[in-house]
Amino acid sequence: MPTSETQQPQSDSLDQSFLSRVLRIVEDQNLIAGEFPTNEKVVEFRHPRELEQEFDLQISKKPTSSDELEKICIKAAKYSVKTCTPKFYNQLYHGVDEFGLAGSWLSDALNTNNYTFEVAPVFILAERAILEYIRRKFGWTQGDGIFCPGGSISNMYGMILARHKAFPEIKTKGLIRGGQSLVIFTSDESHYSISKGANWLGIGTENVIKIKTDEAGKMIPELLEQAIEHAQAEGNVPFFVNATAGSTVMGAFDDLTRISQICKRHGLWMHVDACWGGAVVLSSIHKRLIEGCQFADSIAWNPHKMIGAPLQCSAFIVRHPGLLHQANSASATYLFQQDKFYDVNYDTGDKSVQCGRKVDGFKLWLMMKARGEAYFEGLVDNAFAQAKYFMTLVEKTPGFRPVFDFGYSCTNVCFEYIPERLRGCPETSEWKEEVAQIPPKLKEALIKKGSMMIGYQPLKHKNKSNFFRMVVHCVPPPTPQDMEYAIKELDMCGRLL
Amino acid sequence: MPTSETQQPQSDSLDQSFLSRVLRIVEDQNLIAGEFPTNEKVVEFRHPRELEQEFDLQISKKPTSSDELEKICIKAAKYSVKTCTPKFYNQLYHGVDEFGLAGSWLSDALNTNNYTFEVAPVFILAERAILEYIRRKFGWTQGDGIFCPGGSISNMYGMILARHKAFPEIKTKGLIRGGQSLVIFTSDESHYSISKGANWLGIGTENVIKIKTDEAGKMIPELLEQAIEHAQAEGNVPFFVNATAGSTVMGAFDDLTRISQICKRHGLWMHVDACWGGAVVLSSIHKRLIEGCQFADSIAWNPHKMIGAPLQCSAFIVRHPGLLHQANSASATYLFQQDKFYDVNYDTGDKSVQCGRKVDGFKLWLMMKARGEAYFEGLVDNAFAQAKYFMTLVEKTPGFRPVFDFGYSCTNVCFEYIPERLRGCPETSEWKEEVAQIPPKLKEALIKKGSMMIGYQPLKHKNKSNFFRMVVHCVPPPTPQDMEYAIKELDMCGRLL
Repeated sequence: MPTSETQQPQSDSLDQSFLSRVLRIVEDQNLIAGEFPTNEKVVEFRHPRELEQEFDLQISKKPTSSDELEKICIKAAKYSVKTCTPKFYNQLYHGVDEFGLAGSWLSDALNTNNYTFEVAPVFILAERAILEYIRRKFGWTQGDGIFCPGGSISNMYGMILARHKAFPEIKTKGLIRGGQSLVIFTSDESHYSISKGANWLGIGTENVIKIKTDEAGKMIPELLEQAIEHAQAEGNVPFFVNATAGSTVMGAFDDLTRISQICKRHGLWMHVDACWGGAVVLSSIHKRLIEGCQFADSIAWNPHKMIGAPLQCSAFIVRHPGLLHQANSASATYLFQQDKFYDVNYDTGDKSVQCGRKVDGFKLWLMMKARGEAYFEGLVDNAFAQAKYFMTLVEKTPGFRPVFDFGYSCTNVCFEYIPERLRGCPETSEWKEEVAQIPPKLKEALIKKGSMMIGYQPLKHKNKSNFFRMVVHCVPPPTPQDMEYAIKELDMCGRLL
Repeated sequence: MPTSETQQPQSDSLDQSFLSRVLRIVEDQNLIAGEFPTNEKVVEFRHPRELEQEFDLQISKKPTSSDELEKICIKAAKYSVKTCTPKFYNQLYHGVDEFGLAGSWLSDALNTNNYTFEVAPVFILAERAILEYIRRKFGWTQGDGIFCPGGSISNMYGMILARHKAFPEIKTKGLIRGGQSLVIFTSDESHYSISKGANWLGIGTENVIKIKTDEAGKMIPELLEQAIEHAQAEGNVPFFVNATAGSTVMGAFDDLTRISQICKRHGLWMHVDACWGGAVVLSSIHKRLIEGCQFADSIAWNPHKMIGAPLQCSAFIVRHPGLLHQANSASATYLFQQDKFYDVNYDTGDKSVQCGRKVDGFKLWLMMKARGEAYFEGLVDNAFAQAKYFMTLVEKTPGFRPVFDFGYSCTNVCFEYIPERLRGCPETSEWKEEVAQIPPKLKEALIKKGSMMIGYQPLKHKNKSNFFRMVVHCVPPPTPQDMEYAIKELDMCGRLL
């Protein structure tokens, strides 16, 4: 018989305290939003090859002492991007809500898999409660839902449920439909996950029909209807329309009411990708942007965007009870026994394409419980107000100008920056080419200085070369001074380019 | 202009300390593996409706005080399952490695998205390093890889890459193949994620051919070859073989070398689902079980199983450089700009079906860095030794007996428990029916007592009714006393059923 003495691996005697060391690093390095000294950098940039020299990345036979490991963690924090600063506008996520993080730390420590009530009783209830809350916020009185590992997977859930509702036999038979293709419709401003999903699901990226948008980036409903009729006339099978509520670059909200009418007329599933813009449901003022979401069949919303839930926190909701289960179930007998002694309707695992599923609902539930709805309404309203203020600064500051005549949408402000030497010149094609080369150069300067991170991109479907996209978030709550800082810093680093 | 005074939401003045309160809960409630008092319960069970009464699950307008919130967190921990105890054998995951958890807490605090080097410099390097380490451990000298949200998604990656390598046009055109179905082969002991993946990817669950296994649960290679030839003869298109290394119930390892020869002969992709059994690569003694993995095209391994990395931690590796990118890229211009000033080969996002991707590699890298390889080798060897000891207890303890003549495999010990009144009786069909009703009843008793959680299931393809599955893990490192406790506790609660 093996004895515990001979078989037991030796562990580091300093183990007990390592989590408290992590807490100290988090506090000392001000990693939580709202506590960041203004003179600190958003990033201490090193090129990949340089950064590789800072760490011994190899795994060796022997352990590393806790002191050494603490140094590694300090260095990891030092060279990581400080998303908690009011200098990080690079992406649609940003700083983290402290109570959300607390929920994340607690559920991580409990190391729980969210697939059955049996193993995740509290987290299953929290997920049910927060999903029911989200459905109500989007104007629904019934339905189901699940937290997903990111909005792209949420959007795929939408496609799968739409497919299963229309053609349940595809689950078993696969996608042979006698030469007919399933067809998806989405705007040319929509997120690329629609195409990635169509690739994975065997629909094919060419069967994603990109509908033109108006000058503000909203899908043109008449063109959607024409495209549906055209696909039908070609003998193909429309089944899914993705409407966007808060597009990635322009922040556009499609007209959900009109799109829902078209979907109804043609018997198509209406999914709303509200991953970015969904947070407007928390605001009495701004929820009008998402009017019509109450008619959707499914909605994806990422609370890890805009309102600062810790990554990953992506909610998917569906109006039709039972469909998540019907579309995804495989009835694994080792996990979803039907002879359990409790109400197995609380088990969620067979609704999911995943088997194990991380606890993502609890942290959102906890942070909303902690802060209360009114706090988040204030956060969202403030982010919109600061975006508006940023736009006024863009309009009045020399060298800055909006990219689009319509202005801006959501909290996305798209703008061009023109260095001094190029201001007031005739806007020839050479001039435009030069201006388009500014964003990568200016961004490089900002990153190397560590003073700001902000996104830029071209937008082919609007015939635009590189321009900047400011995205104003809720965490840390931006101030007018933050907006002024962003403008000043861009101008200071960019003027002489 | 909005002022910061009017727009700024008010936050709770006690914010600063809440993370330290979480740390205290984790310490006070002994949530970290290895520190659990022997008299504490693995779960304080409440039925769903009862547990709902313990929490006010509603989100209200107003905030909750930090003191109240702390009580909620304490209660959440109290009613959660303590996966860190040597009383939790319910699933293939279990207690968490403290250093892994430290990595998770740190990356959660930094709230980082793992899609570009730009925003995740340190975590991208750690992911690259640990994936390269994993590839080497599985006997590869080249390739690529990515961390996925769970093994089911990893297995889908395998299918997608296989499909893209064989039929790259499906990415754009979709799955119409003129009446031919794509066909997948996997054992009848394999994980249900293969079927779930076939459902999502439009292949169809009926096009997943389940190959019979031998008495030990290993796929029978001759039958695999026959099935491939049969599918071809029917005009369908075999493209993917899933071999299992550590099946969920029986712990079976397929003969990877022979399967690889068959795949080679027929030009098929060989994926290895090593989600559970992959940890044997860390052991000089037990890695022989996975011999042949060096010939695979892709492998899925979940370090959150067996070795105790925090959930989720699922590695997917592929032998063919470039294919992850080719199969998944959508070239989003707002995220993967090619005019960046650093080496964009370090950006991972366009290799993924996800957009945002949680940092899952760093925690594994950190815990392996902390502990060293030798520690994990000891852990794995100890888990196997304790499983062996558990099997001897099953064989010699009255009322217990192995389910299978072959014994057991991996650290999965399948056994029946027979209460006193049924021992020594003729094993009629009525008797068998009664014995099959014991596991749910005995499990209910154990859970209500809080003394142990252990899985049970029927296994139709082996013509078996309900039986127990013991799975021995690495964290907390099991001792002979733990194995004896499990046997005694089952017998104490089950004898009089």
